[in-house]
Amino acid sequence: MAHSASNLQINSDRLWGTIHETAQFGATPKGGVRRLTLGPEDQKVRDWFRAACEAAGCTVHVDTLGTLYAIRPGRDMTMDPVGLGSHLDTQPTGGKFDGILGTLSALEVVRTLNDAGITTDAPLCIIDWTNEEGSRFAPAMMASAAYAGDFTTEDILSRRDADGISVGEALDAIGYRGKEAVGAVKLQNFVELHIEQGPILEAEGKTIGVVEHGQGVIWYDGVVTGFAGHAGATPMPLRRDGLAALSEVVLAVEALATALGPNAVGTIGEAVISHPSRNVVPGDLAFTLDLRSADAGVLDRLDEAVREKIAAIATRRNVAVELTQVWRKLPTHFNGKLVDAVETATRALGYSHRRITSGAGHDACNLANVMPAAMIFVPCKDGVSHNELEDATQADCTAGANVLLHTVLSLAGIAD
Amino acid sequence: MAHSASNLQINSDRLWGTIHETAQFGATPKGGVRRLTLGPEDQKVRDWFRAACEAAGCTVHVDTLGTLYAIRPGRDMTMDPVGLGSHLDTQPTGGKFDGILGTLSALEVVRTLNDAGITTDAPLCIIDWTNEEGSRFAPAMMASAAYAGDFTTEDILSRRDADGISVGEALDAIGYRGKEAVGAVKLQNFVELHIEQGPILEAEGKTIGVVEHGQGVIWYDGVVTGFAGHAGATPMPLRRDGLAALSEVVLAVEALATALGPNAVGTIGEAVISHPSRNVVPGDLAFTLDLRSADAGVLDRLDEAVREKIAAIATRRNVAVELTQVWRKLPTHFNGKLVDAVETATRALGYSHRRITSGAGHDACNLANVMPAAMIFVPCKDGVSHNELEDATQADCTAGANVLLHTVLSLAGIAD
Repeated sequence: MAHSASNLQINSDRLWGTIHETAQFGATPKGGVRRLTLGPEDQKVRDWFRAACEAAGCTVHVDTLGTLYAIRPGRDMTMDPVGLGSHLDTQPTGGKFDGILGTLSALEVVRTLNDAGITTDAPLCIIDWTNEEGSRFAPAMMASAAYAGDFTTEDILSRRDADGISVGEALDAIGYRGKEAVGAVKLQNFVELHIEQGPILEAEGKTIGVVEHGQGVIWYDGVVTGFAGHAGATPMPLRRDGLAALSEVVLAVEALATALGPNAVGTIGEAVISHPSRNVVPGDLAFTLDLRSADAGVLDRLDEAVREKIAAIATRRNVAVELTQVWRKLPTHFNGKLVDAVETATRALGYSHRRITSGAGHDACNLANVMPAAMIFVPCKDGVSHNELEDATQADCTAGANVLLHTVLSLAGIAD
Repeated sequence: MAHSASNLQINSDRLWGTIHETAQFGATPKGGVRRLTLGPEDQKVRDWFRAACEAAGCTVHVDTLGTLYAIRPGRDMTMDPVGLGSHLDTQPTGGKFDGILGTLSALEVVRTLNDAGITTDAPLCIIDWTNEEGSRFAPAMMASAAYAGDFTTEDILSRRDADGISVGEALDAIGYRGKEAVGAVKLQNFVELHIEQGPILEAEGKTIGVVEHGQGVIWYDGVVTGFAGHAGATPMPLRRDGLAALSEVVLAVEALATALGPNAVGTIGEAVISHPSRNVVPGDLAFTLDLRSADAGVLDRLDEAVREKIAAIATRRNVAVELTQVWRKLPTHFNGKLVDAVETATRALGYSHRRITSGAGHDACNLANVMPAAMIFVPCKDGVSHNELEDATQADCTAGANVLLHTVLSLAGIAD
C-alpha cells in the first residue's frame, strides 16, 4: 500500500471534467461563472457536490451557516479529520477556478484514494465554505470566520444582501440551513488548494506556490471634499480640485508601497466623482484604499506613511480627505510543519515551486488562527481572477491536486 | 430726455420679483430650477415671458428653432434692432440666475424705458435663445449657433434627446416651432448680461466684469487601457494601473495649464473606472479633458504640451491612452467698440469693475462671429453655477441690469 500511495496521482481528466461540468451552474456567455452564494445556482452546485461526495462514500454534514463537511472515514475514527477544500461560490462575473479548483480537487483526492483502495489513518473532511466571496453578503469568508470564532453564528445569520434578504432566509430558501453547530465538526488541520490570483508564478515559470503567509489587510473608505467649479471660469490658482488631490494620493500610495516593497502593496480600486461633468472641476469624490503586507510591521509603517501623506496633501490643497477604516486583518503565518509538508510533497512530485505570500484573503487564513493550516497555489493565466477570463491549465490544476493529495496523505497518515 | 436717460436706473425690486416669480417654473426643493429646454416647464416660462413682453409693448416673433424675439419699436424702424437677452432654460439641477438674469434684465430694460417714456432711435429686440444649456439636446447654444450659420436649421431640428424625441417634435409639443426663418430677425449687435459662473469678481470685490474675450475650448474624450489585477496578489512592479496613469495625467494637465496661466485652464472633469472594485487594481478608465484659453496660441501650446505629456506617461507606464477630440472652438474676441460701451456705462454708473474673460461659452460668443457683440458679468456666490446653490445678490443683479440699460441706450441711441 505504501508503494502504491507514493506513486499515486489524481485522475487529471476526471478533475478537469468536474471543473467543467459544475461550471454549467451559473455559466456566463463569456465562459465564466456567476454563482452568488446561497442563490439558486449555488443550490444546484451544492446538490451536485453533496451527491458526488456521498457517492464517494462520504457522510455529509451541513452546519447552520450552510457549510458542507463531507467526511471520509479513517482507520482511526477517534482522530479529528484532516480538512481539505475551499468554496464553490463565485464573484458576480467570476471564473471557473477561484475556490472551485480547491473544492473539486478535494473531491478528486477522495475519489483517487477510493480507486486505489487506500484508507488513511485519520478521517478526511472535504469542505465547501459558505460565502467566501462576500459579493452578496458581507463580510467575505464569513463562514470560516465564524468557524474560527471571529463572529457569532447569529450575527452572520442576520447579515442582509442588497435586496434585504438575510443569510438565514437565503439558507432556508435553498434548504441549506444545516443542523450542525458551526465549529461542531472538528478538524485537526486544513489544507486549501487555490489559483494564485496574481502573476508571480506565471512570470517566474513555477508550477506550485508553497504559501507561507497571508497578507495583512487594512481597508479604508475615503471621501475627498474639494469644491466644484466651472471648468472654464475657475482659474487654476483658485481651484480646490478633488480629483487632483486624489491623484496625488494615488501616486503617493503607489510610491510608498513600492518603497516598502517587495512585501507591501497599496491600491485605490474605486474612485467616484460626485456629479461628474465634462466642464466642471471635480469637487467631491469617494474612494477606497487597500493596504497589504505579510509583515505586520511593514503594514503599520505603510498605513502610517499613507495617512501622513494624505493629511499633507489635503492641507496643501485646502481640501478635506477623510478616511474611515472598514477592515483590519493581521497577517497570516501558515503553520511551519504544514508548509513544509506541502513543500515536501511538491519536491517528491518533481514540480518547480517557490515559497509565496497570498495576496488575497482565503478561508485558510481564518482557520490558521485556530488550527494548523496551509495553502497550495497554482498559476492562473495573466494573474487574472474575479473575472470571466480567469483561466488555468489542466496540467497546473492537476499538479496542484497531486500536491494536495500527497500533503493530505502525509498529514492523515497511511498504515503500512 | 437726455438728462432723465443719463440718470435712469432699472427697477431693482421689479427685476428681483420677476427672477423669483419665474423661478417657480421648474422650482426644485433645494431652491434651484429644473427647466430643461422645450419641456413643459420651459413652455410655462416661455408663455409667461411672451405675455410679459407683449404687455410691455413688444411684438414677439418666434423662429423655427423656438427662439423668441420681442421687438420694441424704435424711432427709426429702418435700423436693425439692438439685441439684448440670454436664455431661460436651465441645467437639470440648475439655479435661478444662469441665463435668466440676462433675459429678464432685458425685459426690465424695456419696462424701465416704458416707465420713463423713452423711445430709442433703433428698435430693441429682447431674445430668449432656445437650448443654451445643451443638457437635453446637443450641442449647447444650438439656436444661436444656427443663427450664426454654424449649423443648418434642419440639422438642429433633427437632433434627439435621450428619449429619442427630436428638437422638431419637442418644439411642436409645446407649440413653439415658430414661423420666422432662423436669422430672419436681423440684429445690428447683441449684448448679454450673465452671472460670471466663476469666482474672480467675488474674489476681487468687483461688481461688473467687462467681458473682452471668450475662451477657446478643446474637448477630448479619453480612454486609458491598463490591466486590472488583484489588489493583494499583484506586486507593485508588475502593475499596469490605469488610475495611477490617469493620476499623472490629471497632475500634468494641472501643472501645464498653471504654467501657461493665467490665461489657460485645463480640467479632467469625468473619470470612470471600468468595473471598479475595492480589491482590484484599476485597469481601464474613461475620462474627459477640457482645455481652454482666450489666446489661440496659448491654447495650441497647452494642447500640444498635454498630448506630449500624456504620450510619455503612457509609454513609461506601459498603458494605452487614447484621445478623441470631440470639440474645438476658437477663442471669441468681443467687439472693441461694444466692450468700450459696456465699460463707459459701468464707469458712468460708478460700479467697480475689471476686464474679464468668459470661461464658459455663451450665445453671445456665437453671435460675435457674425455681428458686434458684448457681455456684462456680475458676481455669483462662491463662483457656483450649474447648481441649485447658484446665487447672486440683488444689488449685483441690479448693477448688471443698469449697465445693460445704459449700454443698450448708447448703442440704440436716444434723440435729444
